[in-house]
Amino acid sequence: MARVIVDVMLKPEILDPQGRAVSGALTRLGITGVNDVRQGKRFEITVDGNVADVDESAMRSIAEELLSNPVIEDYTLRIEP
Amino acid sequence: MARVIVDVMLKPEILDPQGRAVSGALTRLGITGVNDVRQGKRFEITVDGNVADVDESAMRSIAEELLSNPVIEDYTLRIEP
Repeated sequence: MARVIVDVMLKPEILDPQGRAVSGALTRLGITGVNDVRQGKRFEITVDGNVADVDESAMRSIAEELLSNPVIEDYTLRIEP
Repeated sequence: MARVIVDVMLKPEILDPQGRAVSGALTRLGITGVNDVRQGKRFEITVDGNVADVDESAMRSIAEELLSNPVIEDYTLRIEP
């Protein structure tokens, strides 16, 4: 079994209200030193076979077309054993 | 600037309807070999100072008390430059 991890985050220029809310909560709780919080999504896809068997280009199209919205989000993809 | 990455995922024994929906969509699109999909949250917290200055135990309490629900979710935390 291999695991494909896809992290989807809003592009840096897109306002992130969820992250902003977390950041505000930290400040209200008296936690200092936090500069910015961004919240995104993480997908763990378990795939049959081992790392070498994973069709990375198929996984990249899934990440780009199904798991993220390329207009406002960036994704990173990595394959783990 | 250091970055604290907190990944929050539902515990393995908790049903994940979002992940299940993605998994079902992949199957309907004819993508085979995908065994399971789990969807979680990823937080990127930008902190003042460098990696050595980060108060890891404070960050762990934030992750445990604010960013995740320990009853149903597990988190992993790592500090990156």
